[in-house]
Amino acid sequence: MHFTSEQRLDDDVLEREFTLGEIPGILWTPASASAPVPLILLGHPPLGLRKMYPRLVGRAQHSAAEGFATATIELPGSGDRPRWAAVEQARADLRQAMEAGEPVSDEIVDALILPLVEKAVPEWQAALDALLALPEIGGPVGYSGGVISIGIRLAVVEPRIAAAGLFAGSFVPRAMFEEARQVTIPLHVLLQWDDEGNDRQAALDLFDAFGSKEKSLHANMGGHTGVPQFAGDAAAQFFTRHLK
Amino acid sequence: MHFTSEQRLDDDVLEREFTLGEIPGILWTPASASAPVPLILLGHPPLGLRKMYPRLVGRAQHSAAEGFATATIELPGSGDRPRWAAVEQARADLRQAMEAGEPVSDEIVDALILPLVEKAVPEWQAALDALLALPEIGGPVGYSGGVISIGIRLAVVEPRIAAAGLFAGSFVPRAMFEEARQVTIPLHVLLQWDDEGNDRQAALDLFDAFGSKEKSLHANMGGHTGVPQFAGDAAAQFFTRHLK
Repeated sequence: MHFTSEQRLDDDVLEREFTLGEIPGILWTPASASAPVPLILLGHPPLGLRKMYPRLVGRAQHSAAEGFATATIELPGSGDRPRWAAVEQARADLRQAMEAGEPVSDEIVDALILPLVEKAVPEWQAALDALLALPEIGGPVGYSGGVISIGIRLAVVEPRIAAAGLFAGSFVPRAMFEEARQVTIPLHVLLQWDDEGNDRQAALDLFDAFGSKEKSLHANMGGHTGVPQFAGDAAAQFFTRHLK
Repeated sequence: MHFTSEQRLDDDVLEREFTLGEIPGILWTPASASAPVPLILLGHPPLGLRKMYPRLVGRAQHSAAEGFATATIELPGSGDRPRWAAVEQARADLRQAMEAGEPVSDEIVDALILPLVEKAVPEWQAALDALLALPEIGGPVGYSGGVISIGIRLAVVEPRIAAAGLFAGSFVPRAMFEEARQVTIPLHVLLQWDDEGNDRQAALDLFDAFGSKEKSLHANMGGHTGVPQFAGDAAAQFFTRHLK
């Protein structure tokens, strides 16, 4: 892990860009912390870190004020990372189906998501190794948001993740519903009730499938990007309950 | 409204029992408040105030610490109020159907709930008149919990109620789903995902039916009485957002 830039944000947050091998990432830490702080991995959709930066930095600043470090890495095939032919093809198929008003087939969803999960999850685990080796970062670790299937897989395979806040998005491969039954960590699931691109019933079924004894579903009005401020606050409180 | 008893609870809360005509009730106010405080009406199931007291006083103390007055009245046919033959019969029919493992018919649900709504709602409005006439109570007013159909009707007919926290329970007459569409105030709806006596799909349909632009569903694991502490905290934050 190599830090490539460093800047102090207004509100006492240190932002450092890094590379982990060829993968770019960003780490935010509360600049005033005197002891190692817990860490939240910030997931995001595969639109590129640069595009997602404004939303991510907002969450990072909020978390830093609560005493958390946050970190994120670029997803395979996104942003400045090399294009990925298989996933590009699946995206094209998805766009075509949606523009034609056709249902998105299981095959398209599998082709879009499963390779991403397979490739991204070990990368997030490698990032976790590197981040936890930093003296300013302790534990426990939470995972928040992004592609929900990546969150599910991480919750199953990565024992260092103690709690996860997930965003019930669309395009969840059927295989992930089975995997969801193996999740046992506390979960906080956000659902936007009127999310245009989201199958509400599938989201409710997925919530039902999670094996966790403590899981909460917070459904709010509005579309995909319309998560109200108070819902973000509630998610933050979930992490404070479980990581502090 | 006549106060019949008064005691100071440990944590700086004044508890006063009262009667409103023949209806008994309880008012809790933060003893240290120097200005009129907002009010939350505490709903409860028709099991009698005495039986519900421990849960109600817990909510009242929590609310008082946040600067709210809370009040509740006995429901018609419950507690020390005269028995009510029609509703007693509906309860007997309900018990019989449940013990026989039969589905609870719409007729039983209507007979159980609709007369209760018709009679209780004007009583809660009369209580509101009396409570808002007290110098220590200002506004705005919230309604919280109890028989959800009473909460729905109150939200529709009583413009002084600015926000409602509802508990998605069972036995909602079909007519109330239509009425739910007329609700426009902010809503915070709790659902216990594994509530034995509750039809989860009906609860989700009811949430969907509410006409409010701001409505949140908080679903948590556990049975009817297993609402986790953090869910109570989130409901309290909802009232703080809307009544302060």
